[in-house]
Amino acid sequence: MINKIPLTEYEERIKKVQNILQQRDIDVLVVFGADSEPQNLIYLSNYWPQFETASVVIPRVGSPALIIGPEARTFAEDYSVIKKIFQVIEHRESSEPNYPGQKLDTYGEIFDFLLSGNKVKRIGISGIAIIALPVYEAIVNSSKSAEIIKADDILINLRMKKSKNEIELMKQSSKITIKAFEAGINNIKPGMEEVEVSGYVVGEMFRNKAESFAFVPYILSGQRTNQAISRASHKVILKNEPVQFSFGCRFGNYSSSIGRPLCIGKMPKKYRELVNIGIGAQELVISSLKPGRPAKEVFKRYWEFLVNKGFSNYFLYGPCHGAGVMECEHPFLESDSEYILEEGMTFQTDIFLGDNEFGLRFEDGILITSKGADVFNNKYREVIEL
Amino acid sequence: MINKIPLTEYEERIKKVQNILQQRDIDVLVVFGADSEPQNLIYLSNYWPQFETASVVIPRVGSPALIIGPEARTFAEDYSVIKKIFQVIEHRESSEPNYPGQKLDTYGEIFDFLLSGNKVKRIGISGIAIIALPVYEAIVNSSKSAEIIKADDILINLRMKKSKNEIELMKQSSKITIKAFEAGINNIKPGMEEVEVSGYVVGEMFRNKAESFAFVPYILSGQRTNQAISRASHKVILKNEPVQFSFGCRFGNYSSSIGRPLCIGKMPKKYRELVNIGIGAQELVISSLKPGRPAKEVFKRYWEFLVNKGFSNYFLYGPCHGAGVMECEHPFLESDSEYILEEGMTFQTDIFLGDNEFGLRFEDGILITSKGADVFNNKYREVIEL
Repeated sequence: MINKIPLTEYEERIKKVQNILQQRDIDVLVVFGADSEPQNLIYLSNYWPQFETASVVIPRVGSPALIIGPEARTFAEDYSVIKKIFQVIEHRESSEPNYPGQKLDTYGEIFDFLLSGNKVKRIGISGIAIIALPVYEAIVNSSKSAEIIKADDILINLRMKKSKNEIELMKQSSKITIKAFEAGINNIKPGMEEVEVSGYVVGEMFRNKAESFAFVPYILSGQRTNQAISRASHKVILKNEPVQFSFGCRFGNYSSSIGRPLCIGKMPKKYRELVNIGIGAQELVISSLKPGRPAKEVFKRYWEFLVNKGFSNYFLYGPCHGAGVMECEHPFLESDSEYILEEGMTFQTDIFLGDNEFGLRFEDGILITSKGADVFNNKYREVIEL
Repeated sequence: MINKIPLTEYEERIKKVQNILQQRDIDVLVVFGADSEPQNLIYLSNYWPQFETASVVIPRVGSPALIIGPEARTFAEDYSVIKKIFQVIEHRESSEPNYPGQKLDTYGEIFDFLLSGNKVKRIGISGIAIIALPVYEAIVNSSKSAEIIKADDILINLRMKKSKNEIELMKQSSKITIKAFEAGINNIKPGMEEVEVSGYVVGEMFRNKAESFAFVPYILSGQRTNQAISRASHKVILKNEPVQFSFGCRFGNYSSSIGRPLCIGKMPKKYRELVNIGIGAQELVISSLKPGRPAKEVFKRYWEFLVNKGFSNYFLYGPCHGAGVMECEHPFLESDSEYILEEGMTFQTDIFLGDNEFGLRFEDGILITSKGADVFNNKYREVIEL
């Protein structure tokens, strides 16, 4: 059992990035991340910022650096496997403290240092979808002449197939999530607010050594079960109404989540029908996940299943998405997916079905192996009446 | 007891923003927010995105709109007090699902709608420090000729002084945080990992109807207590070593946190000395917070206290920061602060002191009243040996 990725694996990741930088003639890659978008920072440095944002800067040769804000030095020194750390004002927290008198660095100085004084000509950026404007401008303004290159694909591709250590962490993460699920079903009572049930779920995660939840748990009841993205609320949970559990934890920084519909008491007939469709759909999708198969073929099977059963109007999105450092990673599995499934890829099968009245999600983590989907959890794929 | 802000108060907030837009001749204000930076979205709409980002767009006259990503419609409809909702691709989650076939809007169409077809000339943006590049570009590209105006100060100033309802929620939030603190000190044992203690703390928060934590709890031990920003880790907590608790919950979306150093067993002499300095510093700061006083005068008192006691080398930042919808809001209280304390402002007194060996934080929420600081929690401001 491990609870973190070994140092050598981080070094290999950096080396792989540098090989691509050299192929593309990119001088430095700036990889941006934030509190709720830490994926690439964790992957490259084991550093997950809080309040502040951060970046990892990788030169085409030599050692990378971690760039943080003014307040997190001891925190970053403790977690980061990248030991060269710079601090720049643009990564400060959003409440914009000034830190008068503190000596800080600039992106220009950092590029100079990492390139041993050679002029930066081509700057790659990873995290374009999330990069904060002032950080982007600080990078652009670091050089009058450098070309900015969108380079998100480097980390996306690198992270898509998981190592043995990563898979081990995801499986351990899944085990903790199942314990949390059981704490939830063992303690939920009619009359509780949704958030109260979260207390049992989240408490169990941390007590089993998770470092956090993968996202604020969705304990949803009644009509609220139709929210594909949500949060537990102050709504009081009633007997005999639809309830949806969707949550996951992070262990060793790797996420693994579960989604299950259930009911305290007797499940309404119409909801039970939808639950059985969800079970059938998830089983079909799991059995369809095989290496060498075009992803969109899996989508097609899922879609045809829903159409044949008469439930296509409950559809919102494709039945799988990547998972790993984050609950949701590239690639999504959709009708327009143009990739082939490969051994070592990990997904969450994520069957969300909903209409105006109610909804559900069946979700479990899986690994693509030579034999097909290795499912991290097969429990509770059934009509659950408590 | 309330657990949410009444609708009329949201309407007043929008009205106040519109008055300023009219004064400044701004046609629309775009207010950006994200999962870990939801402050202004919550303040204006009660919507706190998850995975996706979002914005509130306020025209100078008429009704505002909430702009979300492709997946969160039922979620946003449930929470948002702003009932006109648009969906744009740039607010999708960072794993960039395509949502093939879904009909989405653009910022240009949204401005047209909100301005009844009048051409947008001046676009204000709030959230410049955090706005994601693609959203910023979508706004800029919505018009060939519109001027972009940084307008962060509008919401910052509006949020600085709290209403009765906001104060009530912060006080309730503080009460839950104290219960969580007590769950922590009642259950911590030598040999536990820091994250395990988080389980008791966080579980208690949610079971007392908090909607989330204000930030992932810092349960820190040994040298790790010197991390001003941090997270609980897998480090095993020992007897007789420094331990730092810093955490808070969110109730009705309002945050209130506590920071206390403690020890299981006997506190090391040198740490006890620092703890007593922390207590003295926090008491001094609390007694110094009075309406009409320049903020930097409070800083000066704090700084002189540390210098006189010979502890100025433990200093990292000023002794207070704003609090409300977020654990950390404008304004910070620093040597260069140029504002005057006013009734209705809320702060966290945040005495962080640390060196290479260890550190501590004494933190509690306060409200500035005509009589001085109304402290939300006065318990446990002492040497805590369990």
